[in-house]
Formats: sequence, structure tokens, C-alpha cells
Amino acid sequence: MESIIFGKNAIIEALESGKREFNKILISNNSKADIKIEQIKKLAQNKGIVYQFVAKEKLNSIEPEGRHQGVIAQLSPIKYTDLDDFIEQNKGKLSSVVVLDGVEDSHNVGAIIRSCVCAGVDGIILPSRRGVLINSTVEKTSAGATNHISIIKTNSIVNAIQRLKENDYWVIASDHHAEQNYFEIDYTDMNFALIMGAEHAGISKSLLKLADFKVKIPMLTNFNSLNVSNASAIILFESVKQKVSKK
Amino acid sequence: MESIIFGKNAIIEALESGKREFNKILISNNSKADIKIEQIKKLAQNKGIVYQFVAKEKLNSIEPEGRHQGVIAQLSPIKYTDLDDFIEQNKGKLSSVVVLDGVEDSHNVGAIIRSCVCAGVDGIILPSRRGVLINSTVEKTSAGATNHISIIKTNSIVNAIQRLKENDYWVIASDHHAEQNYFEIDYTDMNFALIMGAEHAGISKSLLKLADFKVKIPMLTNFNSLNVSNASAIILFESVKQKVSKK
Repeated sequence: MESIIFGKNAIIEALESGKREFNKILISNNSKADIKIEQIKKLAQNKGIVYQFVAKEKLNSIEPEGRHQGVIAQLSPIKYTDLDDFIEQNKGKLSSVVVLDGVEDSHNVGAIIRSCVCAGVDGIILPSRRGVLINSTVEKTSAGATNHISIIKTNSIVNAIQRLKENDYWVIASDHHAEQNYFEIDYTDMNFALIMGAEHAGISKSLLKLADFKVKIPMLTNFNSLNVSNASAIILFESVKQKVSKK
Repeated sequence: MESIIFGKNAIIEALESGKREFNKILISNNSKADIKIEQIKKLAQNKGIVYQFVAKEKLNSIEPEGRHQGVIAQLSPIKYTDLDDFIEQNKGKLSSVVVLDGVEDSHNVGAIIRSCVCAGVDGIILPSRRGVLINSTVEKTSAGATNHISIIKTNSIVNAIQRLKENDYWVIASDHHAEQNYFEIDYTDMNFALIMGAEHAGISKSLLKLADFKVKIPMLTNFNSLNVSNASAIILFESVKQKVSKK
């Protein structure tokens, strides 16, 4: 399902060529002291690519024939956009972006990207370390929407949110403990960054602190458990409704 | 993933006992002239259970060890509700129901049921022949919501809609060719049945004709392609918003 490169030399070459878009690099716990692994780590660091140490079994599950030599690079089918470029490109108009704080299900991420494009959202921000990046399942579930929006991968969501705030984006966090309803804010006259939390954990506290607005979706029953892609659609299409009604 | 019974005698016994909830019965094209298959067809007919003729390969893919004897019954993990019972149970209050016209993806059906429960919808109607019935993937994706709503399986969606209309439900069809926006109707003072179409085909013409309201979800871009579970959530939570705001 996922596009990968494995083997030390192949990954070093791909890193040096700069022609491939990496999601992350997975290194076996047993391979820490290897000289070529050291080289991979250094190259990755220089290029801001995340590497993570995992059990060898994890690598075997991704490349079952065992030719991985203790290291697998997961590639992205799309080119990520740099956050500063994104901000620059969207200056001078009302802009919006959705921040996914560790959403783990590829189907959810794909459906959210699809709704974002329909709702005129300009960008999606995904964390490099937690949750899902763009893979072939995300692409397929998005129905091609990944090609119609800027997708930003960041090593620090907190820093990304701070950059957005410095550039006149208002931060809205979806939080079911919030007092304000999502339809009580005016989306039509501001740039906004909407943060949606992971399926089980919700939004991390460090991000909630940065929010200018916390909003909830009221329910008619105690079964308080909307799917994150549906929750995103509900809030985004309230913003669409307001914009369409104002025209 | 799915609970099944296979083999002629086992299925005859299950049908006669009346203790199992059937989704449908699949019969191999080659088994048409068999006397026990005739018995299965008759029992199924008497109980309103759908049977369909399929290629033997389809049966082999469900029961790979080839012990199926040309017939497999797909069971449901939940008990379906009878439409007339549903209507009776929901008399005397404002009631709503979502009708899925052939939605094919189990993840979508599960997510829609989850949103329905959060939005206080009383029932879901699924067609017996097309699209997905309740299976273990639907159950899992619904996060347990299948236990908190009436689920109705019908051999004719058209007849079901007509029964609902006779019982004072207004029929709303989600149709992207509609002129009216989904937020321009008042959901707070009527029983309603919301029809959502299949992923690719949309709502069938015979159902569109029965609609009292056709509504669209306006988009901000030309990428007019919302996921059906997100589209359902957007419309249902407009109804929730209206009800919450009116209180």
C-alpha cells in the first residue's frame, strides 16, 4: 500500500539526490551503532526528515522478505509544501487551514482532505511524528483531493500554530469540553486555523492553550462520539454556509 | 469479518429455527435445480429474506475451503427493526430517520450511523439487495452506535418511503442538482426522512420523485465531491443546530 525504499545504500542515495519526498525513516533498534545508519541519520537531520527507532518486527512487517538491512524509508506520493511558502502564497486573501493533531486513520485523513477542498480550505497541516502522513490509502480516500490543496508536514505543530498566529490567523480548536458552539463564531472575516484532535486523545493541552476560540458541536444524545472526519465537515461547512449566505 | 452459515442443511435449520438474523442468502448459479435449494428459497421467501444467485467463485471467496455446497447465508450481528414497529414506537414525538439508497462502503455506513445517533436520529433504513447491510466492519466503525438506533432492512425503499409519507414524515433528498440549500429548510417542526444516495450513483430517480424537499450542500470550489458520510453529518447537524438554537 505504501511506497518505500529499503536498504542502507538505496536510502543514502535517495537522501543525497533530493528527488524523493520522504514521510519518515524507520530504523531497527538493533542497527543503532552502524556507520551507514549514522550517515542516514545525519542526512535526514540536515533535511528535516524524521527518523524513528522501531522493533525489527515492525520493519519485517513492512518488507516481509527481510532485505531491509535494518532501515526503511516511507515515501510520500505528493510533494509537501513549506509552511512559510504557504503563508506567503495565501497573503492578501482570507485564508484557512486545518491542523490535524495526530489523526491516525488513513480513511479519516483522506475524507477530511476531501471536505477541506470542497469547503475552500487552502491547506492541511500534519505532524511528522504522530498520526498519518500522506500514503496511498489517504490519496485514494481523498478522491484525488490531495492534488488540490497545500499539504504541510511539520516537526512541531506548536511552532506551526505560532507562525500562523504571527501571520494573522485565528486559531479555533474543536474541543468537546468547550462552552461555545461551533456556529457561534463568525468565520467570514478572518483567516483561521482549525485544529482537530486525534480519534481518542483529542487535542493536546499545549495546543489548546494556543487557541483563540474553543468550540464544541452540541449533540442531541449522550452518545458523544462523532467521527473526526464528520466533526471536521460539520465545522467547515458552517464556515461555508456563512460565506455563501453573506455573498 | 462477516458471520456466515454455509451448507444446505445448516441453512435450512437456521431458517426454520427463526433464531438467527439474516442479511441475505447467496446461492450458486449452478445449484438452481437442487431440491434442498428449492426448500431454502421457499423458506426465505416466507420470511422476507432476500436470496441472490451469484457465481460459484463469489461463494468460494467467502468460504475458501469449499464446504458451502453452493449456498451461504450472511448473518447480521444486530436484530433489524420492522418498519411498522418503528413508526409505531416513534409516534407522538418529532421523529427522524435516514435512508441510505445503496451506500456500498462499510466504513461510510458505520460513520453515518454514528453521526445519526449523535444527532438524535431514531432510525436508519437500508435496502436488502443493494449496498451494505450491518456487518462487523459497520459495527466497529460505528463505535457501538448500532446498539443505540433502530435499523430497518427493507426489500423496497420506495415502499418504505411511501409508508413514512403516509405516517406524516416529510421526505428530504440530498441531491447536488437541487436548487435549495440544506440550511434553508426548517427541521424543527416536522418528522423527516433524509435520503442519502450511493457513493457514485447518487439517489435513484424513483426515490427523487417522492421527495418533498431536494437540498444541496453548496461548495466553495468546483471539487464537488463530498464523502457521503460527511455530507450526511453536515445536513443532520444543521438540524441539530436548529433544534438546539430553538430551545
